[in-house]
Amino acid sequence: MTYRAPVPDILFTMRHVAGLDRAVADGVYGDLTPDLAETILEEAGRFANDVIAPLNREGDKHGVTLKDGTVTTAPGWKEAYKGWTEAGWNALPGPVEYGGQGLPTLLNSACVEMWNAASMAFGIGPVLTMGAIEALVQHGSDDLRSRYLEKLVSGEWTATMNLTEPHAGSDLAALRSRAEPAGDGTYRVTGQKIFITYGEHDLTDNIIHLVLARLPDAPAGTRGISLFLVPKFLPDGTRNDVRCHSIEHKLGIHASPTCTMIFGDNGGAVGWLVGEENRGLNCMFTMMNNARLAVGLQGVAIAERAYQQALGYANERRQGRAIGAAEGMSPIAVHPDVQRNLLTMKALTAAARAICYMTAEAIDRAHLEEDPARRKKANERASLLTPVAKAFSTDIGVEVASIGVQVHGGMGFIEETGAAQHFRDARIAPIYEGTNGIQAIDLVTRKLLLSGGETVRAQIAAMRATVARLLKENTPAFGATAPRLRDAIESLDRATSHLLQSLSSNAQGEALAGATPYLRLFALAQGGAALAEMALAANAQAAGGDTDPAHAGRIVLCRFFAENIAVGAKGLEETVMSGAGFLQDATLALAS
Amino acid sequence: MTYRAPVPDILFTMRHVAGLDRAVADGVYGDLTPDLAETILEEAGRFANDVIAPLNREGDKHGVTLKDGTVTTAPGWKEAYKGWTEAGWNALPGPVEYGGQGLPTLLNSACVEMWNAASMAFGIGPVLTMGAIEALVQHGSDDLRSRYLEKLVSGEWTATMNLTEPHAGSDLAALRSRAEPAGDGTYRVTGQKIFITYGEHDLTDNIIHLVLARLPDAPAGTRGISLFLVPKFLPDGTRNDVRCHSIEHKLGIHASPTCTMIFGDNGGAVGWLVGEENRGLNCMFTMMNNARLAVGLQGVAIAERAYQQALGYANERRQGRAIGAAEGMSPIAVHPDVQRNLLTMKALTAAARAICYMTAEAIDRAHLEEDPARRKKANERASLLTPVAKAFSTDIGVEVASIGVQVHGGMGFIEETGAAQHFRDARIAPIYEGTNGIQAIDLVTRKLLLSGGETVRAQIAAMRATVARLLKENTPAFGATAPRLRDAIESLDRATSHLLQSLSSNAQGEALAGATPYLRLFALAQGGAALAEMALAANAQAAGGDTDPAHAGRIVLCRFFAENIAVGAKGLEETVMSGAGFLQDATLALAS
Repeated sequence: MTYRAPVPDILFTMRHVAGLDRAVADGVYGDLTPDLAETILEEAGRFANDVIAPLNREGDKHGVTLKDGTVTTAPGWKEAYKGWTEAGWNALPGPVEYGGQGLPTLLNSACVEMWNAASMAFGIGPVLTMGAIEALVQHGSDDLRSRYLEKLVSGEWTATMNLTEPHAGSDLAALRSRAEPAGDGTYRVTGQKIFITYGEHDLTDNIIHLVLARLPDAPAGTRGISLFLVPKFLPDGTRNDVRCHSIEHKLGIHASPTCTMIFGDNGGAVGWLVGEENRGLNCMFTMMNNARLAVGLQGVAIAERAYQQALGYANERRQGRAIGAAEGMSPIAVHPDVQRNLLTMKALTAAARAICYMTAEAIDRAHLEEDPARRKKANERASLLTPVAKAFSTDIGVEVASIGVQVHGGMGFIEETGAAQHFRDARIAPIYEGTNGIQAIDLVTRKLLLSGGETVRAQIAAMRATVARLLKENTPAFGATAPRLRDAIESLDRATSHLLQSLSSNAQGEALAGATPYLRLFALAQGGAALAEMALAANAQAAGGDTDPAHAGRIVLCRFFAENIAVGAKGLEETVMSGAGFLQDATLALAS
Repeated sequence: MTYRAPVPDILFTMRHVAGLDRAVADGVYGDLTPDLAETILEEAGRFANDVIAPLNREGDKHGVTLKDGTVTTAPGWKEAYKGWTEAGWNALPGPVEYGGQGLPTLLNSACVEMWNAASMAFGIGPVLTMGAIEALVQHGSDDLRSRYLEKLVSGEWTATMNLTEPHAGSDLAALRSRAEPAGDGTYRVTGQKIFITYGEHDLTDNIIHLVLARLPDAPAGTRGISLFLVPKFLPDGTRNDVRCHSIEHKLGIHASPTCTMIFGDNGGAVGWLVGEENRGLNCMFTMMNNARLAVGLQGVAIAERAYQQALGYANERRQGRAIGAAEGMSPIAVHPDVQRNLLTMKALTAAARAICYMTAEAIDRAHLEEDPARRKKANERASLLTPVAKAFSTDIGVEVASIGVQVHGGMGFIEETGAAQHFRDARIAPIYEGTNGIQAIDLVTRKLLLSGGETVRAQIAAMRATVARLLKENTPAFGATAPRLRDAIESLDRATSHLLQSLSSNAQGEALAGATPYLRLFALAQGGAALAEMALAANAQAAGGDTDPAHAGRIVLCRFFAENIAVGAKGLEETVMSGAGFLQDATLALAS
C-alpha cells in the first residue's frame, strides 16, 4: 500500500485551524496566498508519493552499511535526495539571502509531514539540516554563515546535531566532550557522541557537525557547554579528524544511519565556535524547538501513513457479513469494530496534525509579526504548544500504527505487508529530540508559567470560544460534541489551576507527578477544539452551497473525537488531581 | 537484562485473588496445597530463568530457517525443549490416564506465564499441544486417544491447530480445505493452511496436525466443517502427504516458525475424523477457549518481562538529580515521571495477571466441581472472563512493552538492549487466537447474555462486595481506592445495562459499536477489584504481624491503579453510551 499525500485535509487544516487565511489577511505571510500554498502542497505531495514513498520499504529491508568508515545508504536513496534538493524542497523554508525561498514554517511543516509520511527514515535527515541553518543564522559568525549557509540551505551539504554522549542523554550537564583553543581562532574538539542521526552517509559531499563540548576553563554543568561547527571536510578540502565508529542496529527507521561519532582520535577535530563561549545550550535550544515540532510532525506523518495502509486493507479484505448485507462476505471496513479502529486512527491523526500546524503558525508569527507585543505573545503560544505538539503527536503515532497492525489481523504481523514497519518506525519519535516525559515536564514546570499563567489561560479561553460557537450553531450533526468538549476543557482548566497552584507553593513533585497525564489532557481538549473549528468551517461551507462530501466527513470526525476520545479527559483530570501521593511509597511497590 | 520469575507475586495472586486457598478448602483441587503449589512454582521458575530465558535473544536474532521442507530452530532450542519435556513440564496439566500429572489449570497457567515471559517464541508451541490434548480427550475416538495422547501429554510429539486459510481468517465459514473418505475409515485431506504456528520444526520426531476441512457433502458455512487429525508421520512410519511450503518473515517471535502448510499435494494427506462430522468447530472451540486464556497469559508474560527489563535499567541508569538529592546524578527510577511509567507497567501487569488467574480457577471449577449447578456457574464465569483475559492482557502487553522501550530512552530503540524485542513480540498476542475485536464482540453479544445476564450481574456484585470491604477497613494507606473503584464499577454496571437493553431490543449495531471500549471498561473495574482483594489480603497479613515489605507494596500498587488507571472508566462508559451514532456516517469520514 503506497502513500497518497492528503493535500485537501492538509490545506483545510492550515486554512481553518492553523489560521493561514487570517495570517495572510493580517499581512504576516507576504506574498503567500492559499492558492499558492495549494499549488506548492500539490507539487510536494507528488514528489512524496512518486519519488520518496516507493523507497520506504526497500530502505527498511536494506538498511545502511558501514565499511571502513564509509556509510552507504540503500539503493536509490542518493538519487532521491539529489532530486529532492534540486527541486528546491530543502530550500523551501531557508532564508532568502542564502538562496532559500523564505516560505513560512506552517507551509514547510505541511511538507515535512509529507516527506516523513513517505518515509520517516528519509524525512529525519533534513530536519537536522534545518535546525543547523537556524542555529547558524541566529548565532553563527559572518564567516561561518557565508561559508556554510548557502550549501546547507540548498541541501548540497547536510548537518547533524551532536549532543548525546554515553553518560549524557536527557541530562546534558554530564557532557564530557572537550574543545581546546588552537590559538588561530579555531578549536580542537575531542570526544565521543552517540545516536547521531545521519552522522555519516553518502548522500552529500560534506557533512557539517554541530557539536556540544566544554572549553578547558568552562564551569561544570550546563553553563559550561559551548557549540562548535566541525565539518567532515575542512575548507581546504582535507578530511577533518572525525569519523563514524559504528552504526546502530535499530528497531526502525533502518534506512537512516544512527552513528557513534569519534571526534579527535588524531589530535583533535578542527572546529569553530558558534555563538558565545559557554552559551552552547542556548544555541542548541534554537535548533531543538523547531526540531521538536518536526518530530511531532513525524508522529502525524507515520499515523497518516498507517491509517492509509489500514483503510486500504480494510476496504479490500472481505470477512464476515455486515448487518443487513446480502449474500457473500463484506469488506471488513464496514464492521463496527473496524470502523471504530479506523475512525480512532483518523481522528487522532487529524487532531495531532491540527496541533502541530497551530504551533507552526505561532512560530511564524513569533518571527514575522511587526508588533513586538504580538511577537512575544505568539512566541509564548509557540512555546506552550511545542511540547504538546511533540509528545502528543508522537504518542499517537505509536498508538495509531499499533491499531493499524491490528486492523490487518495476521497479515499485520508479517513484515512484507508494511504495517509492521510503521509500528517499528513510529517508536523512535516519542524518544528523540527530548523524550515525551521531558516534554511533559517542560510543559508543566516552564510553559504553564509563561506570563504568569496568562498564556495557558488565553489558550483555554480560545477553546471555550470554540465551544460557544458550537452551541450557537446548534447543528444536529454535531451530536454531543459541544457538551463533551466543554467537559474536557473544564477538566483541563481545573487541572491547570491545580498545577499552577502546586508550582506557586513549591510543590514541584506534584507537578512532575502529573506532567504526563496533564499533557495528554491538554492535547485532548486542544485537539477536540481544533477539530471543532474544522467542523464549523466545513459546516459553513456546506451551508454556503459547497457540495464537497469531505465537509460532512469532517463533522463526523469531530463528533467521533469528542464522543469517543475527548471523554478521556475526566479520568486524566482525576489522575492529575490525585497527584504525587504515589511518589513517596512508589519504591515499595517497585521493590516487591 | 534477564528474567526472574516473580514467584511471590504469582503465588499471592493465585491464593488471594484467584482463590487457590478457597478451592483447596472446598476440596476441588484434590491433594494440592498452597505449599506444594509454591514448590512447583519455584521449580518452574528456575527452569524458566536458567534454561529458557537465556535462549530468548539468540532465538530472536537467529530465527528459524526452512530448507528443502525442513525447518531448523535456533541453536539450543531443541535441547531446551527436550529438557523441558523430560522435566515433566509439558505433562503438568495433562490427564493422569495418559501419563499427565493432572494438575489444575490455575497452577499450569502460572507456569505458562513463566515459560512465555522467559520466551514467548518458546512458550507458544506447547500452548497448541495442550489445546490438541484437550480436543482429543473430549472428542477423539478411543483409537486416536490411545495412539496419540501419551506422546502429546509427555511432549515427545507436538501438535498444531490448522484453521486459517488465505480467505478464511476471522470468518471460518469461508474455509475451503477438503476431506474425502477413503473407504477404510480414513480421509484424504487437501488444502492450504496459513499462519500455522510450529507447523514444521526439528524439536520432535512427529507433529500432529489438527485440521479443519469440509466433507464432500458438507453444508456451506460453519455447520459444514469437520476436524481431522493428520500426523506428519503415519503410524507405519511413512511420511504423510503434508509439507511446509514457506515460513513467514514476522515482526516478532522470530524463533517460532509460522508456516504455510500444504495438505495433499500428492493425492491427499491421510487423516482421521475427530468428533462428529460437521461438528469440527465445536471441537475447535474446545481447544480455542483454553488457548485464548494461554494467549492472555502471554500478554501478562511479556508485560512482566518488559517491566523487569525497564525497572532494572531505571535502577542503574543515572541522569539528572532527584528533588532533594545531594550531589551527583540519581537513578532515573527516582524521577516522578519514570516512577509513573514503572508503576503503570506493574499495575497493568498485576491486574491482567489477576484476571487471567481468576479465569483459570473458573475453568478448573467448571471441570472439577461435583455439583452440576456449581459446574455450570463456574463454566459461565469462565466463559465471561475468557475474552476479557485474552484481550485486556494482550492489549496491555503491547502498551507495557511500549512504555518499557520509552523508559530506556534512546537505548530502548537499539535491538541489542532487548526492550525492542518485547515490543515486537508482544504485538502478535492481540491478533492470534481470535483478534481482540472478535473477543470484544464475543463478550458483548454472547457472554453478557449468559443466564439472561445473571452471570455478568453476579460478577459485578462480587466487585461491589470488594469495595464494601475496602470501605469497612477504612485504611488510610488505601487513599481514594474505594471511591475510585466504586465509580468504575458503577460505570461498568450502567454500560452493561445499556448493552443488555440494546441486545434485547435487537440493536445489534449498538452493542458491536461499543464492544471494544466495554471490554476495556470491564477489565478496569475487574482488575481494580482484583488488586483491591490483594491489597486487603496484604493489609490483613501485615496487621497480623507479617513484616514482608511486599505487603505495603501491594497496597500502593492497588491505590495507584485505582487513582491513575481505573479512573478511565467514566470516559469508556460515555463512549459505550454514545453508541452506534458514528456508524451510519462513518464512511463519510473515512472516505474524505
